[in-house]
Amino acid sequence: MTNRNLLAKLPPPSAEEDFATLLDRPGVRIERIVSHGHVTPPDAPYEQAQDEWVLMVAGAARLWLEGSDEVTLSPGDHLLIPAGVRHRVTWTPPGQPTVWLAVHIAA
Amino acid sequence: MTNRNLLAKLPPPSAEEDFATLLDRPGVRIERIVSHGHVTPPDAPYEQAQDEWVLMVAGAARLWLEGSDEVTLSPGDHLLIPAGVRHRVTWTPPGQPTVWLAVHIAA
Repeated sequence: MTNRNLLAKLPPPSAEEDFATLLDRPGVRIERIVSHGHVTPPDAPYEQAQDEWVLMVAGAARLWLEGSDEVTLSPGDHLLIPAGVRHRVTWTPPGQPTVWLAVHIAA
Repeated sequence: MTNRNLLAKLPPPSAEEDFATLLDRPGVRIERIVSHGHVTPPDAPYEQAQDEWVLMVAGAARLWLEGSDEVTLSPGDHLLIPAGVRHRVTWTPPGQPTVWLAVHIAA
Protein backbone atom coordinates (compact mmCIF):
# COMPACT_ATOMS: atom_id res chain seq x y z
CA MET A 1 0.00 0.00 0.00
CA THR A 2 1.35 3.41 -0.83
CA ASN A 3 0.14 6.60 0.69
CA ARG A 4 1.13 10.03 -0.42
CA ASN A 5 0.68 13.48 1.05
CA LEU A 6 -1.30 16.24 -0.59
CA LEU A 7 0.82 18.91 1.10
CA ALA A 8 4.20 17.37 0.33
CA LYS A 9 6.38 18.18 -2.67
CA LEU A 10 4.41 21.31 -3.47
CA PRO A 11 5.56 22.82 -6.74
CA PRO A 12 7.38 26.17 -6.63
CA PRO A 13 5.54 29.29 -7.79
CA SER A 14 5.31 29.48 -11.56
CA ALA A 15 3.40 31.26 -14.26
CA GLU A 16 0.64 28.66 -14.26
CA GLU A 17 -1.30 26.81 -11.59
CA ASP A 18 -0.17 23.25 -10.98
CA PHE A 19 -2.56 20.37 -11.69
CA ALA A 20 -1.84 16.80 -10.57
CA THR A 21 -4.20 13.89 -11.08
CA LEU A 22 -4.36 11.71 -7.95
CA LEU A 23 -6.89 9.15 -9.17
CA ASP A 24 -8.49 8.67 -12.58
CA ARG A 25 -11.45 6.36 -13.02
CA PRO A 26 -14.33 6.20 -15.48
CA GLY A 27 -16.61 9.05 -14.45
CA VAL A 28 -14.43 10.28 -11.57
CA ARG A 29 -11.13 12.11 -11.45
CA ILE A 30 -9.50 13.38 -8.25
CA GLU A 31 -7.03 16.20 -8.70
CA ARG A 32 -4.76 18.42 -6.62
CA ILE A 33 -4.49 22.03 -7.72
CA VAL A 34 -1.82 24.37 -6.34
CA SER A 35 -2.15 28.13 -6.80
CA HIS A 36 0.41 30.81 -5.92
CA GLY A 37 -1.46 34.07 -6.29
CA HIS A 38 -3.05 32.90 -9.54
CA VAL A 39 -6.41 34.17 -10.70
CA THR A 40 -8.56 33.21 -13.67
CA PRO A 41 -8.49 35.86 -16.39
CA PRO A 42 -11.83 37.74 -16.42
CA ASP A 43 -12.28 37.02 -20.12
CA ALA A 44 -11.54 33.30 -19.78
CA PRO A 45 -13.73 31.81 -17.04
CA TYR A 46 -13.76 28.08 -16.51
CA GLU A 47 -16.79 26.19 -17.79
CA GLN A 48 -16.79 22.41 -17.60
CA ALA A 49 -19.02 19.63 -18.82
CA GLN A 50 -18.57 17.82 -15.51
CA ASP A 51 -19.60 18.64 -11.98
CA GLU A 52 -16.65 19.67 -9.83
CA TRP A 53 -16.62 19.29 -6.06
CA VAL A 54 -13.83 21.31 -4.48
CA LEU A 55 -12.27 21.36 -1.03
CA MET A 56 -9.92 24.08 0.14
CA VAL A 57 -7.10 22.16 1.83
CA ALA A 58 -4.63 24.95 2.61
CA GLY A 59 -4.35 28.63 1.82
CA ALA A 60 -7.30 30.73 0.73
CA ALA A 61 -9.19 31.88 -2.34
CA ARG A 62 -12.04 33.95 -3.62
CA LEU A 63 -14.28 32.29 -6.16
CA TRP A 64 -16.93 33.72 -8.45
CA LEU A 65 -19.69 31.57 -9.89
CA GLU A 66 -22.07 32.84 -12.51
CA GLY A 67 -25.35 33.78 -10.87
CA SER A 68 -23.98 33.72 -7.31
CA ASP A 69 -22.19 36.00 -4.91
CA GLU A 70 -18.45 35.77 -4.77
CA VAL A 71 -17.29 33.64 -1.85
CA THR A 72 -14.13 33.48 0.19
CA LEU A 73 -12.80 29.99 0.82
CA SER A 74 -10.79 28.97 3.89
CA PRO A 75 -9.30 25.59 4.76
CA GLY A 76 -12.05 23.00 5.17
CA ASP A 77 -14.55 24.88 2.99
CA HIS A 78 -16.09 22.80 0.24
CA LEU A 79 -18.63 23.43 -2.48
CA LEU A 80 -20.04 21.99 -5.66
CA ILE A 81 -19.48 23.78 -8.95
CA PRO A 82 -22.22 22.36 -11.18
CA ALA A 83 -21.45 21.42 -14.77
CA GLY A 84 -21.96 24.30 -17.16
CA VAL A 85 -21.66 27.04 -14.54
CA ARG A 86 -19.00 29.55 -15.48
CA HIS A 87 -16.62 30.33 -12.65
CA ARG A 88 -13.41 32.18 -11.91
CA VAL A 89 -10.87 32.25 -9.15
CA THR A 90 -10.67 35.98 -8.41
CA TRP A 91 -7.98 35.86 -5.73
CA THR A 92 -5.45 33.57 -4.14
CA PRO A 93 -2.83 34.91 -1.73
CA PRO A 94 0.55 35.60 -3.31
CA GLY A 95 3.65 34.33 -1.58
CA GLN A 96 2.10 31.13 -0.29
CA PRO A 97 0.71 27.99 -1.82
CA THR A 98 -3.04 27.44 -1.93
CA VAL A 99 -3.95 23.76 -2.22
CA TRP A 100 -7.28 22.61 -3.62
CA LEU A 101 -8.72 19.14 -3.88
CA ALA A 102 -11.06 18.77 -6.86
CA VAL A 103 -13.28 15.79 -7.59
CA HIS A 104 -14.54 15.86 -11.17
CA ILE A 105 -17.70 13.84 -11.63
CA ALA A 106 -19.30 12.93 -14.93
CA ALA A 107 -22.66 14.68 -15.17
CA MET B 1 -24.03 29.03 -3.95
CA THR B 2 -23.55 27.47 -0.57
CA ASN B 3 -20.25 26.42 0.83
CA ARG B 4 -19.77 24.50 3.99
CA ASN B 5 -16.76 23.65 6.11
CA LEU B 6 -15.51 20.16 6.72
CA LEU B 7 -14.02 21.16 10.07
CA ALA B 8 -17.04 23.08 11.35
CA LYS B 9 -19.79 21.66 13.50
CA LEU B 10 -17.79 18.59 14.40
CA PRO B 11 -19.87 16.12 16.35
CA PRO B 12 -18.99 15.52 20.00
CA PRO B 13 -17.30 12.26 20.98
CA SER B 14 -19.74 9.38 21.04
CA ALA B 15 -19.77 5.61 21.04
CA GLU B 16 -19.71 5.45 17.25
CA GLU B 17 -17.83 7.23 14.51
CA ASP B 18 -19.77 9.96 12.73
CA PHE B 19 -20.54 9.61 9.02
CA ALA B 20 -21.93 12.49 6.95
CA THR B 21 -22.59 12.31 3.22
CA LEU B 22 -21.45 15.49 1.49
CA LEU B 23 -22.33 14.56 -2.09
CA ASP B 24 -24.16 11.56 -3.46
CA ARG B 25 -24.15 10.81 -7.18
CA PRO B 26 -24.53 7.68 -9.25
CA GLY B 27 -21.23 5.88 -8.85
CA VAL B 28 -19.66 8.45 -6.50
CA ARG B 29 -20.29 9.35 -2.88
CA ILE B 30 -18.22 11.86 -0.90
CA GLU B 31 -18.33 11.45 2.85
CA ARG B 32 -16.87 13.03 5.97
CA ILE B 33 -15.94 10.65 8.77
CA VAL B 34 -15.12 11.89 12.28
CA SER B 35 -13.36 9.58 14.74
CA HIS B 36 -12.66 10.24 18.42
CA GLY B 37 -10.31 7.46 19.46
CA HIS B 38 -12.39 4.89 17.59
CA VAL B 39 -10.88 1.74 16.17
CA THR B 40 -12.37 -1.02 14.04
CA PRO B 41 -12.96 -4.20 16.03
CA PRO B 42 -10.37 -6.84 15.03
CA ASP B 43 -13.11 -9.35 14.30
CA ALA B 44 -15.13 -6.94 12.15
CA PRO B 45 -12.87 -5.40 9.49
CA TYR B 46 -14.38 -3.24 6.79
CA GLU B 47 -14.73 -4.80 3.35
CA GLN B 48 -16.52 -2.87 0.65
CA ALA B 49 -17.68 -3.55 -2.88
CA GLN B 50 -16.52 -0.08 -3.92
CA ASP B 51 -13.10 1.52 -4.13
CA GLU B 52 -12.57 4.07 -1.38
CA TRP B 53 -10.12 6.95 -1.69
CA VAL B 54 -9.38 8.55 1.65
CA LEU B 55 -7.71 11.78 2.70
CA MET B 56 -6.68 12.51 6.28
CA VAL B 57 -7.88 16.06 6.83
CA ALA B 58 -7.16 16.55 10.54
CA GLY B 59 -5.97 14.37 13.39
CA ALA B 60 -4.18 11.08 12.82
CA ALA B 61 -4.81 7.37 12.41
CA ARG B 62 -3.23 4.03 11.91
CA LEU B 63 -4.74 1.85 9.22
CA TRP B 64 -4.28 -1.81 8.43
CA LEU B 65 -5.02 -3.23 5.00
CA GLU B 66 -5.01 -6.92 4.31
CA GLY B 67 -1.75 -7.89 2.65
CA SER B 68 0.03 -4.62 3.49
CA ASP B 69 1.99 -3.08 6.32
CA GLU B 70 0.09 -0.95 8.78
CA VAL B 71 0.46 2.74 7.97
CA THR B 72 0.24 5.90 10.04
CA LEU B 73 -1.75 8.69 8.46
CA SER B 74 -1.14 12.38 9.07
CA PRO B 75 -3.00 15.40 7.68
CA GLY B 76 -2.66 15.52 3.90
CA ASP B 77 -1.98 11.80 3.55
CA HIS B 78 -4.20 10.04 1.03
CA LEU B 79 -4.50 6.51 -0.23
CA LEU B 80 -6.76 4.20 -2.18
CA ILE B 81 -8.43 1.27 -0.44
CA PRO B 82 -9.35 -1.03 -3.32
CA ALA B 83 -12.72 -2.74 -3.38
CA GLY B 84 -12.67 -6.07 -1.62
CA VAL B 85 -9.59 -5.39 0.49
CA ARG B 86 -10.31 -5.89 4.16
CA HIS B 87 -9.11 -3.02 6.32
CA ARG B 88 -9.24 -1.76 9.86
CA VAL B 89 -8.56 1.48 11.64
CA THR B 90 -6.23 0.31 14.42
CA TRP B 91 -5.74 3.66 16.17
CA THR B 92 -7.07 7.20 16.27
CA PRO B 93 -6.02 9.60 19.00
CA PRO B 94 -8.45 9.87 21.89
CA GLY B 95 -9.45 13.31 23.12
CA GLN B 96 -9.39 15.00 19.74
CA PRO B 97 -11.38 14.68 16.53
CA THR B 98 -9.86 12.94 13.53
CA VAL B 99 -11.49 14.04 10.27
CA TRP B 100 -11.38 11.88 7.15
CA LEU B 101 -12.62 12.62 3.66
CA ALA B 102 -13.73 9.48 1.83
CA VAL B 103 -14.64 9.24 -1.84
CA HIS B 104 -16.48 6.00 -2.59
CA ILE B 105 -16.24 5.04 -6.24
CA ALA B 106 -18.23 2.30 -7.94
CA ALA B 107 -15.85 -0.43 -9.03
